[in-house]
Formats: sequence, C-alpha cells, structure tokens
Amino acid sequence: MADSKHMKRLKEILGAAADLNAASALLDWDMRTYMPPGSMESRSFQLASLEEAVHEKMTSRELGSLLRKLEGEIGKLDPDSDEYRLVKKVGRDYDREVKTPPSWVRRNAQAVARADTAWGKARAAADFRIFAPHLQNLLELKLEYISFFEPAEHPYDILLDRFDEGMSCAVLNRLFNRLKKDQGAIIRKALAQEKPDASFLKRKYPASKQLALTRRVLTRMGYDWNCGRQDRSVHPFTTSFGLYDVRITTKVVDGNPFSALFSSIHEGGHALYEQGIDKKYARTPFADGASFSIHESQSRLWENLVGRSPEFWAFWFPAVRKMFPGNLETVSPEEFLAALNVPEASPIRTEADELTYNMHIILRFQLEKSLIEGKMKVTELADAWNAGMKELLGIEVRNDVEGVLQDIHWAMGEFGYFPSYALGNVISAQLWDAALKQEPSIPDSIAHGNYAPLREWLRTHVHRFGAKYNTAEILARATGSPELDAGPYLNMLKEKYC
Amino acid sequence: MADSKHMKRLKEILGAAADLNAASALLDWDMRTYMPPGSMESRSFQLASLEEAVHEKMTSRELGSLLRKLEGEIGKLDPDSDEYRLVKKVGRDYDREVKTPPSWVRRNAQAVARADTAWGKARAAADFRIFAPHLQNLLELKLEYISFFEPAEHPYDILLDRFDEGMSCAVLNRLFNRLKKDQGAIIRKALAQEKPDASFLKRKYPASKQLALTRRVLTRMGYDWNCGRQDRSVHPFTTSFGLYDVRITTKVVDGNPFSALFSSIHEGGHALYEQGIDKKYARTPFADGASFSIHESQSRLWENLVGRSPEFWAFWFPAVRKMFPGNLETVSPEEFLAALNVPEASPIRTEADELTYNMHIILRFQLEKSLIEGKMKVTELADAWNAGMKELLGIEVRNDVEGVLQDIHWAMGEFGYFPSYALGNVISAQLWDAALKQEPSIPDSIAHGNYAPLREWLRTHVHRFGAKYNTAEILARATGSPELDAGPYLNMLKEKYC
Repeated sequence: MADSKHMKRLKEILGAAADLNAASALLDWDMRTYMPPGSMESRSFQLASLEEAVHEKMTSRELGSLLRKLEGEIGKLDPDSDEYRLVKKVGRDYDREVKTPPSWVRRNAQAVARADTAWGKARAAADFRIFAPHLQNLLELKLEYISFFEPAEHPYDILLDRFDEGMSCAVLNRLFNRLKKDQGAIIRKALAQEKPDASFLKRKYPASKQLALTRRVLTRMGYDWNCGRQDRSVHPFTTSFGLYDVRITTKVVDGNPFSALFSSIHEGGHALYEQGIDKKYARTPFADGASFSIHESQSRLWENLVGRSPEFWAFWFPAVRKMFPGNLETVSPEEFLAALNVPEASPIRTEADELTYNMHIILRFQLEKSLIEGKMKVTELADAWNAGMKELLGIEVRNDVEGVLQDIHWAMGEFGYFPSYALGNVISAQLWDAALKQEPSIPDSIAHGNYAPLREWLRTHVHRFGAKYNTAEILARATGSPELDAGPYLNMLKEKYC
Repeated sequence: MADSKHMKRLKEILGAAADLNAASALLDWDMRTYMPPGSMESRSFQLASLEEAVHEKMTSRELGSLLRKLEGEIGKLDPDSDEYRLVKKVGRDYDREVKTPPSWVRRNAQAVARADTAWGKARAAADFRIFAPHLQNLLELKLEYISFFEPAEHPYDILLDRFDEGMSCAVLNRLFNRLKKDQGAIIRKALAQEKPDASFLKRKYPASKQLALTRRVLTRMGYDWNCGRQDRSVHPFTTSFGLYDVRITTKVVDGNPFSALFSSIHEGGHALYEQGIDKKYARTPFADGASFSIHESQSRLWENLVGRSPEFWAFWFPAVRKMFPGNLETVSPEEFLAALNVPEASPIRTEADELTYNMHIILRFQLEKSLIEGKMKVTELADAWNAGMKELLGIEVRNDVEGVLQDIHWAMGEFGYFPSYALGNVISAQLWDAALKQEPSIPDSIAHGNYAPLREWLRTHVHRFGAKYNTAEILARATGSPELDAGPYLNMLKEKYC
C-alpha cells in the first residue's frame, strides 16, 4: 500500500531528523577519537546546536498536527504494520519531547560537554572533586527533567523509560535482589577456589598484533567493514551514522593482552545488531536497537557466551598461538581458556568478568537511586562507592580512577543507563538458550569459526526489527515469553564456575 | 557598547548556523578521510539535510525581520564597527539565500555527493564519460541557480560573487589576457633553458619520513596542533570546524618526494589564516577568509614565496639531508633548490610549479565560461581540455585522469572557484612585496627558521580581520591600494626564471 500524503511527509521529517542525529553522532565520535583538544568548547556548542535543531524538528507544530491526522488514519492499518508502529512510536517520543523545553536541552548538552572534559581532567589528577561540581550540575538538570513529567511510581522510572520503555525501579529491585543473593553466593564460592596459572598472559603481546587479531575475529563474526571501521579511543564504544556506517572503537590495555579482543567482540556484537537492522528502516526511528538492554544483550552474548567459550577457542587458539610466538607453545587450550576465565573481582567494571559484572551495576543502580531520591549528596559519592565495592565484592578501591571516576556515563548525563548492562547479561543468556534450543548446531559451528548460524538466528529473531519492538516484545518473539528471567544466566554461571 | 536585544538575537542565530556549518564540514572531512565506502549514499542525505537546516535558519522570516530592524539601528554605529559590518554582510547573504529555493539546495547537495562518488569511479577507470552525466547535472543546476538572480554583466559573474565579492568576468578577462601574454613569454623562455640535474629526487624517500618532515615544518610555521591535526586524503585540503579546530590533509606522491611537504606548507598557509582570525569572531560569519582569492594568496605565499626560496632551504636543507641518509650528501644546497625549482610543464594543476600554474587556471576559466555561455557541451569538455593544454603549455594529455578528471572542484559543483587560485598567486606577490617593504628582516628570519615576523605581519594585516573585509579592502589595508596588480608576480617570475 502506498504511503498517504501525511505518511510521506512524516517520513521526510523523520529522515531529516535522522540525518541531523547522524551528524551529531559523528561530532561525538570525532570528539572521542581524533578531535584536537583545543576544540572542546566549540564542540560543545556544536553538539548543543545540533541537539536543539533535532529537538525543534521533533517538537514542531507541523509534526504535532501531522501526528494527530495520522492517528486518525492508521486505524485502518494492521497494528503490527511498520506504519502503525511508526506513528505510535513517534507519537510517544513527541509527547516526551514537547514536555522538554529547548532551553533545558541546550543547557544539558553544554553541561555534558563540559562535564566530559572535567571527567578527563579529574581522571588525570585521580581526583573526584574536580568532577563533582559538574556531576552536581548534571544531577540537578536530571531532577529538573523529571519534573517535566507526570509523577511515576518512582522518579527513577522516568529516567529508565528513556533506555528501556516500560522498565521500572520495582522490576529492577526484584531482579537485582535475586542477583545480589544468588549471584553473590556463586561469586563467593568461585573466588574461594584455587586460581589456575595465568602467568603466560603477562608476557609480551605487541599492541599491533592484538589489534590485528581483533580485525580477524570481527571479520569472521561478519562485521561489515564496507559499512564500518574500527578506531582507538579511551573508552570503547559503538556508534552509527545511519545503517550504512556503524563504527566501533577499542583500546589496548597494558598487562591485559586480550582486553582489546574482548572489547572488540563486545562492540562487534553491538555493531552486528545495527548492521543487521532491515535496511528499509534507514533514516527512521526504527534504525536503532529495541532498547539499551536488548542492545547490551547482543554485546554480552558475543563477548561472554561466544568469546569465552571452549568452542570459540577451539578455533582461535591455534591461530593466537602462532600470532604471538614464544608465549603460548607450552600452554594447552584448556589452560589458556581457564586463564581467560579466572574468576576475579576487579574494581573496574569494563574489566570485570561475567561472574562479577552485575555487582558493579547493582552498586551504580543503588547510588543513582540514592542521588535521585536526594538521600545522598554528590560530595558523598566517592565514599559511598568505595564502601559499596567493599560490601559487594570485597574490593578496596585504591583511588577515584579505579572507583567513582571509571565510567564516562555520568559525565554524559546518563543516569538510568547502567541497569541495561545487567539486563543485557540476563537477556543474553535467555536468548542464547532459545537460540540453542532452535539451532542445536550453533556450538559446533562456532568451534569451526563459523558464526553464520548464530548471527542469522539473531538477525531473524532480534536484529532485523530494529526499534520496531520493545524489550518485552523482542523477548516474546525470540524466547516465547516477554518476561525477564535471571534463571538462564545464573545457571550458566553455576555450571561454569562451581 | 553592549549589544541591543536584536543584535544579541542575531548573534544567537548566527552562532547556531555556524555550528551546523561546522557539523557539515566535519561530515565532509570524514567523507574524505575515514568514512567507509558503503556509507556514501547516506552521507549525501546527511550533507543535504544539514545544508537545508542552515538554509532554513539563514532564510527564516525571523532573521529577515531582525535584519530590517537592525538596518535601522546600525545607522548610529561606526560604519567600520564589527556590528555594522556584520549586519551588512548577513543582509547581503540573506538576500542571496532567500532567492535560492530549499528544493534547489537539497537537489544540489545530493547531486554533489553523487558526482563526487562518480568522479572517484571515473578516475579509477580513467574515463571522463562515467563522470560526464553528473557534471551535466551539476551544470544544469548551476544555470538554474544563475536564473534566480538579476542578470549580471556576464552570467559567470553571479558564480564569481560567491567566492569573491565584486569580482567580474571583465576584470578576469583583462588580468588573464595579460598573464597569458606576459607569463606565457616567461614560460617559453624558461622551458627552453637547460634543466639542472634533479636525479637525486628519484631516490628513496620513505613516506613516513616525508610526513615527519611536514610536521616539523608546520610546527615551525606556527601551525597550532592543539587546535588542528593533519591526515591523509586523495586531494589535500584545509577545513575548519570553528576557529579552534582547523584541520589539514596531505598526500604522499610516488616519485615526487617533496610534494607532501609543499602541499603541507600550502595547506598550512590556509590554516594559519583561519587560526589567525580574531577569536572574537568565533561562531560568526567573520570566522572565515575575506575571499577565496585572499585565502589562496596565503597558501601560495607560504608554498612558493617562502617554501621555494633560498632562505627557507638555508635552514631546512641540512635537516633534510640528515633525514634521508644516502640521498643528498653529495648535493649542494644550490643544486637542491634548483632541482625543486626546475621549470616544468606538468599536466596536473596541483603538481604545477609557480611558473606554469596560472595557465592551468586560465584553461579552466575559459572552459567554465564556455559551458556557462552554452558555447560548449559537457561531452566536448575532455577534448577541449586536451586542446587547451596543448595550446597553453604544449602538453599532450595522456588520459582523463591527467586531464579533465584531475580536480575535485567540478565534482563539488564549484564553478567560478578556479580563478581564485590565479588571483591568489597574483595577490601573494603583492602582499609579499608589501610585507618586505614594511619588515625588511623577513627573509633573514626565514633563513634562521623563524617565521614569526612574516606570520605576525600577515596576522596583523590580513588574518585577524577574517571575513570582515573583502578582497579589495584587504589589499588596500595591506598594500595601500585596492587594485589587483599582476606586476609583482610577473617580476618575481622574471627574476627567478629568466
């Protein structure tokens, strides 16, 4: 069926907004990869102006009246059709956007850009106090943002909704309490076991070869280099400027020779998702993940369930042994894999293993909630952080870089983002279980360096829909149930570590 | 004096437009340096949407009424004040922009992005016919553009005005006829002379060291790396994303070991101009060059009058000899300089020397004029090009890559741009003469690797004003007369080559 006049105009507006968002994403990518340092202040103005331009477009009177007309028109359409869903999704976003004043958008974007610089400086000086006033500023902006909306069951729910439609503090409290208890028990048991030898990981692994390995693995995973590239940055990330340009970054970590590989597999998982979205959704709001948690489930699935499996290394270990001569000749594949999977409580989230990772998230969730509830001051954050790390993982945080300053998210004003990582872990195991039930040959293919069966299953059940469906709908389609279920993840950990 | 309410609002609008232009420039920089090939079509949409957003901003009713109010207000101001000049300049641009329909802007931007890809493909296949339909399309768009305006003395004048306010075909015809005759005579004489030995330039000069040399020279020139960076691209260029991020690119040319250096000095000249603009003009239309010809005078001055002088090499030759061991030990500084300045007619403009360069421009000017006048068809262009090269420089063009496909400008829809290169040559010598009259120590400083006296003279008399003044006004301030004068350039060539 041909689009109506109004639908055509809607798609024009959405296309132009998508283009401006792509430009904004490029400004951001450039800021984190190649931008000269002297340009930080100008870049913050540029990002703010772009955001404002998108905001203007997405809150225009024309769009409002277009949506009202289309709400009337779509009654005739299949409620599962792209057009019906598009109008509903844009309508929801429009309602949220019109409640957010342009002046707030500009102030927030500028505050974020400045906080980002301050975060860098605070890290260089290992001193949270340099960053604290900026975080205070961002927190106040967040509270102001919450005030624009009808009160929710919990004010934090309003923040969660931006990352995961329909998610709530109540659901997270339940899920995280179970993880804290059951995953906590597995962690204590695993950490008490004797550690395997991992001394061969301390040998010399030249950075250039680490990066060459990441490229080989990404290529086999099916990352499309014709529509992407990999660069280096302080904090690895994935970004896209439309469906035809999905970029990833990685970093080489001294003393952790496979960190670059795992971060590349992780970002590669995000990138396969974006590259796998149906191209008919280009330049529409569907050209995105279903939610941050579904997005994270993809990176987690590839990083942990694929990348840390015996099957993965059955194929790659011989190649890696050849790439780093002198390091691994006397090491067996089993010893190598055991060394990669040594359960260890790290103070750093991005270096945490699959065993302890969720505890990092639970800590951040608790702290964010306390800040939002006004039960804790920003100036108390570093101490609360350190106490939490001690309680959850028995870790003594040595300095703020290893502690409260480690993540960029708060510097980006992203409160409510962190839970999606833990949800991603939980969902990754739910999807993995479902995939293996439907395609039992997947592990064997992986052992032969063939990721097509897994990738195609994910493409069919998750990727191609982009943001047409939300978390619960994707879960229902892929696993048969819309519910979050910590079971598969806890089972996986138990089997592997106990 | 504090800005009025209207002036403040004007500056807000101009700031936001400058930010969107910066984003657009970044999309373009990225397209030419790091973008994966599969993204070309999306990028063309993004560039078009950005241009449209700027166009909307700069033709809005609000801006129109603001300008009318400000026209009334500025009567009280000094006609040389920034605010007076700003309103006048923005008013002129507004008048031009409102005459250009948004649909044309979008069609043109998309056509440019596609033509750019086709140009790349045509070059790969060395076949102008692949590019011709795209050029035809761009030409028709240009003729449509001309039709939006009051007829000028010559339709080409309307295109010239975009690059050089007040420039005309009549002025160019006069200037170029003189150059064709007088410079033509110098060329014939110089090319008839016996060539010095340049065989040592055919030795091995590793690319990485060529690039290291460019960085050393740029640093000494005063290029600010904190607000810039250098990358590689097919065609070297300078771009800026505001006054705090001015980037250059270079390329390494096989068999021409100092091409990267001279292109870097050239782009460095452009970059010093942008970096030297008074920072108070950031995020205004003054954060730009006075005109394309004044901009080009800066790159030419540094590349030819500085970079090819005995004084420059008095400092650099010993360093270069050390950087490339085995290549230059038996070569004297005079022999080296003579080899760099061998008069030679190249088919390639960007590799042409200062002696023959203007002939390349005169050819392009003649061809563009014929296309615009409708006296020649696009399909005849390659043959006309080849005939012109034969007539002006006695060169047999071997293929389209060496001929009509060599420059990116037409693929960018830039008709009327080329003359500014020849004007830049002419003006560079006018400015150089004036600088040396006022600061006779400049050559001696250059011989000591000290570019500060020259750079500061340029900053004081040219750079800091940005686009506040036009070509004639800059000339008047720097040389005492607003007139273009081929004399200094012809004298320089005569002295050097005859």
